[in-house]
Amino acid sequence: MLYMIGLGLGDAKDITVKGLEVLRRCSRVYLEAYTSVLTVGKEVLEEFYGRKLILADREEVEQEANNILKDADISDVAFLVVGDPFGATTHSDLILRATKLGIPYRVIHNASIMNAVGCCGLQLYRFGETVSVVFWTDTWRPESFFDKVKKNRQNGMHTLCLLDIKVKEQSLENLINFTLNRGRKIYEPPHYMSVNQAAQQLLEIVQNQRIRGEEPAVTEETLCVGLARVGAEDQKIAAGTLQQMCTVDLGGPLHSLIITGGSLHPLEMEMLSLFSIPENSSESQSIDGL
Amino acid sequence: MLYMIGLGLGDAKDITVKGLEVLRRCSRVYLEAYTSVLTVGKEVLEEFYGRKLILADREEVEQEANNILKDADISDVAFLVVGDPFGATTHSDLILRATKLGIPYRVIHNASIMNAVGCCGLQLYRFGETVSVVFWTDTWRPESFFDKVKKNRQNGMHTLCLLDIKVKEQSLENLINFTLNRGRKIYEPPHYMSVNQAAQQLLEIVQNQRIRGEEPAVTEETLCVGLARVGAEDQKIAAGTLQQMCTVDLGGPLHSLIITGGSLHPLEMEMLSLFSIPENSSESQSIDGL
Repeated sequence: MLYMIGLGLGDAKDITVKGLEVLRRCSRVYLEAYTSVLTVGKEVLEEFYGRKLILADREEVEQEANNILKDADISDVAFLVVGDPFGATTHSDLILRATKLGIPYRVIHNASIMNAVGCCGLQLYRFGETVSVVFWTDTWRPESFFDKVKKNRQNGMHTLCLLDIKVKEQSLENLINFTLNRGRKIYEPPHYMSVNQAAQQLLEIVQNQRIRGEEPAVTEETLCVGLARVGAEDQKIAAGTLQQMCTVDLGGPLHSLIITGGSLHPLEMEMLSLFSIPENSSESQSIDGL
Repeated sequence: MLYMIGLGLGDAKDITVKGLEVLRRCSRVYLEAYTSVLTVGKEVLEEFYGRKLILADREEVEQEANNILKDADISDVAFLVVGDPFGATTHSDLILRATKLGIPYRVIHNASIMNAVGCCGLQLYRFGETVSVVFWTDTWRPESFFDKVKKNRQNGMHTLCLLDIKVKEQSLENLINFTLNRGRKIYEPPHYMSVNQAAQQLLEIVQNQRIRGEEPAVTEETLCVGLARVGAEDQKIAAGTLQQMCTVDLGGPLHSLIITGGSLHPLEMEMLSLFSIPENSSESQSIDGL
């Protein structure tokens, strides 16, 4: 059996009792290590779970799925995913491969950012399409996700922005010098987009739209919510304008950003006011209108 | 401290290790008992958790919140919620009351239907606004949620339909005879809407729209996914037309229904094909187009 086990969002103890029991009896335990991170490292997980973990990065899951699934028809293999196993499409891919090989699978669900964002008080059922905000480079500055934000706002819906994570990525320079490096792959240190960076990119898009004479669906004054380390002991939530999101200090990764969908339910407003950025903490617009 | 603890979706062991540790050290443990159910009852939970649970129905949470929060400034109180604590707005309400009383709170997240529906293979980020389908009565047959389904489909987004749950509801007859009953409240047995019932109501709306000369956004042939007991050992998923959803047998509660948003990603199609209703199991349209 292939067990897809969600680890939740915080630390080692956010796994479910069932998930822990199952992984302890599996013959091999893989840890998916590229779409999200917990606040603790592999060693801490290994100690708490009492099992050796095999790190599976994107390349391995895509290229060596058959190794992961080896003997899973006669023994139990666990594939651990931060959050819930159905955040990223690649995990569907592993299930489909297993099914083709006649290997049964089971999913042990957990919280993911997709439902835990509700902790800020915005109502989950009022979220529209989720978007991904990627790191811009000098030559690649995609703005297309902004259309989805616009559509959501036109329909009065909030937008959850998942912020880019780069883990085990090769830089362009590395790729070009691949032969010089004698075929050895050199990876960049992992980096995670902050709410500040996402907000700055968004404001640049807003400026670009104004330059092109378009009416932007979002402005400096749009009410946003920045979230950091949701589910962890030291989680941080800050509600304020998009302008304020450029400077608010939320600490270390992972960050997410919500762009609200316009008119809020009174309960949503009251919950967000628990997290509003104090007026004097930022040089920008206050959020009295909250 | 007030701890809001998600129990997940299946049985007693779907609580997180952290959630279990916390509830065991709380002075009082409430179980919210009106927005969802697990596959096991209160007694099974009590035995596994090793704690007595105080059932909190809707009336108590709304009217006696201060009892729930009593002494939570000097001791720890746990409020257990099936799924995740941020599915229903009433839990924001409890947090706001606590905050006003100066009581700190913490949330221990878990899977909820809002993210666990991903198990059918449809991509979570492509879901639009979630709708609730309520039991119709002879005199109250709301169709307004259908507009949201339409808007989602126009935007190519899937719609998760949460199906009605009636727990500890008084019948209209009971309410009328309240004085005759000497003020004693008599409750209906709990009932849960099935995918069959939801699909039948939807098809009635489609017929009504046709009678009014409107072009319905959904037809008998629209691809849907019925889900039952998501996260439990005996979970069932069936992909087929809305017509097929009227007769498909998914077993006991809880049920949910997804109305797909039109064009599917190849991976979504491939995943759904794992759950497609066999052609000969239904008198209605086949789903060869899947």
